Amino acid sequence: MHIDFGNALSTETTHGVSEASLQRLDERVVRAHDRIETGIEDREFGYACLALPEDTDADAIREAVAGFDPEAVLTVGIGGSSLGADTITAALGLEGHYTLDNIDPQYTRRLLDRLPLSETLVNVVSKSGTTAETLANFLVVREAMADAGVEWTDRTVVTSGDSGPLVELAETHDLPTCRVPEGLPGRFSALSPVGLLPAAALGGDIEAVLEGGAEGRASLEPSLFDCPAYAYGAVSYALEQRGATTNAFVPYAEDLEPFGEWFAQLWAESLGKDGLGQTPARALGVTDQHSQLQLYRAGRKDKLVTLVRPRERTDIDIPETNVEELSYLGGETLGELLDAEFEATEASLVAAGQPNVRIEIDRLDAHGVGELLYGMEAACILAGELSGVSTFTQPAVEWGKRAARGLLGAGEFEEAEAVKDKTVRRVE
Amino acid sequence: MHIDFGNALSTETTHGVSEASLQRLDERVVRAHDRIETGIEDREFGYACLALPEDTDADAIREAVAGFDPEAVLTVGIGGSSLGADTITAALGLEGHYTLDNIDPQYTRRLLDRLPLSETLVNVVSKSGTTAETLANFLVVREAMADAGVEWTDRTVVTSGDSGPLVELAETHDLPTCRVPEGLPGRFSALSPVGLLPAAALGGDIEAVLEGGAEGRASLEPSLFDCPAYAYGAVSYALEQRGATTNAFVPYAEDLEPFGEWFAQLWAESLGKDGLGQTPARALGVTDQHSQLQLYRAGRKDKLVTLVRPRERTDIDIPETNVEELSYLGGETLGELLDAEFEATEASLVAAGQPNVRIEIDRLDAHGVGELLYGMEAACILAGELSGVSTFTQPAVEWGKRAARGLLGAGEFEEAEAVKDKTVRRVE
Repeated sequence: MHIDFGNALSTETTHGVSEASLQRLDERVVRAHDRIETGIEDREFGYACLALPEDTDADAIREAVAGFDPEAVLTVGIGGSSLGADTITAALGLEGHYTLDNIDPQYTRRLLDRLPLSETLVNVVSKSGTTAETLANFLVVREAMADAGVEWTDRTVVTSGDSGPLVELAETHDLPTCRVPEGLPGRFSALSPVGLLPAAALGGDIEAVLEGGAEGRASLEPSLFDCPAYAYGAVSYALEQRGATTNAFVPYAEDLEPFGEWFAQLWAESLGKDGLGQTPARALGVTDQHSQLQLYRAGRKDKLVTLVRPRERTDIDIPETNVEELSYLGGETLGELLDAEFEATEASLVAAGQPNVRIEIDRLDAHGVGELLYGMEAACILAGELSGVSTFTQPAVEWGKRAARGLLGAGEFEEAEAVKDKTVRRVE
Repeated sequence: MHIDFGNALSTETTHGVSEASLQRLDERVVRAHDRIETGIEDREFGYACLALPEDTDADAIREAVAGFDPEAVLTVGIGGSSLGADTITAALGLEGHYTLDNIDPQYTRRLLDRLPLSETLVNVVSKSGTTAETLANFLVVREAMADAGVEWTDRTVVTSGDSGPLVELAETHDLPTCRVPEGLPGRFSALSPVGLLPAAALGGDIEAVLEGGAEGRASLEPSLFDCPAYAYGAVSYALEQRGATTNAFVPYAEDLEPFGEWFAQLWAESLGKDGLGQTPARALGVTDQHSQLQLYRAGRKDKLVTLVRPRERTDIDIPETNVEELSYLGGETLGELLDAEFEATEASLVAAGQPNVRIEIDRLDAHGVGELLYGMEAACILAGELSGVSTFTQPAVEWGKRAARGLLGAGEFEEAEAVKDKTVRRVE
């Protein structure tokens, strides 16, 4: 992973950060690195994710999916239980991974009608085994399998924690299982079975993903000037301090779109607390140059724009044309056009006073996505140390869960009363 | 369309707006409404979009696609030339619409390899006929069709302006064409052939979409208290003045995910100028409750959260289970769970001091999406009037276009020199 923060310096834009400030910040990076290293060594909650390239047992994942060779994998999971798997299968260019990470009945029905259920591996993922959306969906999927004459116990794999209803179900029916590591919140579990199992089932090289992660592990050095992940985490933090309360995250590769979603969860749920945290704004290059770039250049200077790309791609020549206005495209490739626009956009942002950072990997493949996932996790953990927030918790989501349970009659919850007392101010 | 801004009032959160302020603001809404009505009557640039339900000739669209009956429609277009079509086909539940709105060679190759080109209608959309990404893609698509033994002139429809290379091409080869209305920027063209043609080709009820738009037209009244679209535009503006610089836009329906992307372009490109404009943060309910909600509740109070849902859905029963922790789900439907979470999330936001607004349509169908598109366009135009920005232009994107052209050797552009002078500060 390569970071270039030249366009985030105060020499380039008034909203940037000075080299001298970064030098001073680096003293705190050194201490944060020590904290992180101790956390990794001791497998402390959360920090343990940075040990996953070493700790994850790829063979156990391969064993859980052995003998299936499915046409499709349907992951039933939500948030951290699905985004890592989406990210890895997409980055590897694997087709056939589908996700039920919402409880929209129309979408669910259409997806289940379309999937070849007798050739689909159902991958149900919930650490607690009680996630309402996941379990409701799983009950619906089981019924659809029964309706299609497919024995669900023959085509289901469970990824869950040490105990809970899903683990009991797996034991009762002798289902293949993988374990969600105990020491991690879901959003940090991409390099565990949670993120890797679907890719393995579809023939992806999960060992190379873990090798990419291991390269990230080896790159952790006690200075933001020596470690790409810390450079990104520290510069993001410094820019947030200077008013960059939005992080517009813009991969220039369609197969990194799920990575943008994964990043959005990582960043929002880890750093969004105590009145702090950048709001991730998901975008995609070059597409969103025709959508968001006007705002990024001419709106408030309250953003960090993060531009992500692979350095090399399998390319396509643009055919010659005799249309004069387009003759400049002849002899170029789609990738060259993409790269020209990437660099033009990057320069256009700094010309408008909008700080930006470039993140690159060599290629978008198993190794590259492993590096990228690891690097962003380390960047996030560093930013959390610098901000002084509790990176690995998400206490603010509990209120709504209790309210929903109350509304569904699962017990007495005062939050449900608040829902009923809503102030209505309608315009029809 | 129904708006409820009860949770945006200052009686509910300290970051909300008072009824008295809205009363005063309504005097400006009255004047803005006059301005907008004049613009509509005179078909002034931009404002003309609000006359589209009346002006769009559905029969001409049907004629352009008559005789094709395609398995798939491939729209080659970017930004405003593709997002409306994506939104409408998705909202109508039409399968078979694909979009080339990026120039990623790996994605392009995979899509072209997968599509049944002999049964695909290629829909190339560019108002100027010179959009670099669109024309490069179209050249690649033509070559792929030739390689597959498909005569491209038999399976291509052109949507373009009054003149330009695409119009000339269509004339030369006698291709069916539709016109991009002259009086509109692309992001306001959803209710024209630009947004409607793919749905028509796939058998969608485009007349009902226009009827939904016409209902929006009929609902424009000179007060934010009487007109849902103006209520949303005015409250958004008032909250932005009070620090809500982000608009987290959260549809609770998978088939509205493209609508969220369409909204993000509309809002960012129209209002993001002169140092103003909310940054759209795209999300999806309930999925992103497991990703963004922690931040929305516990991060900075610099957001408006917009929650969107259809009031009715085709539903699915959740099967009963004997697992005690999940027994509360038995007898419920997926839609009931979805709605309970919608209301719980809405209440959880206001309990955390985070203003939010609810937008509802009766059902997610052709009529409903027409209403929603029209309503958000009217809301955006009103917000632009109140902000005093030039809603219908996007001047800030030109710099990067010139820089890219310069890099590709299409002429001398000083912006390209700035790209080459970039300050590099690398960490590897």
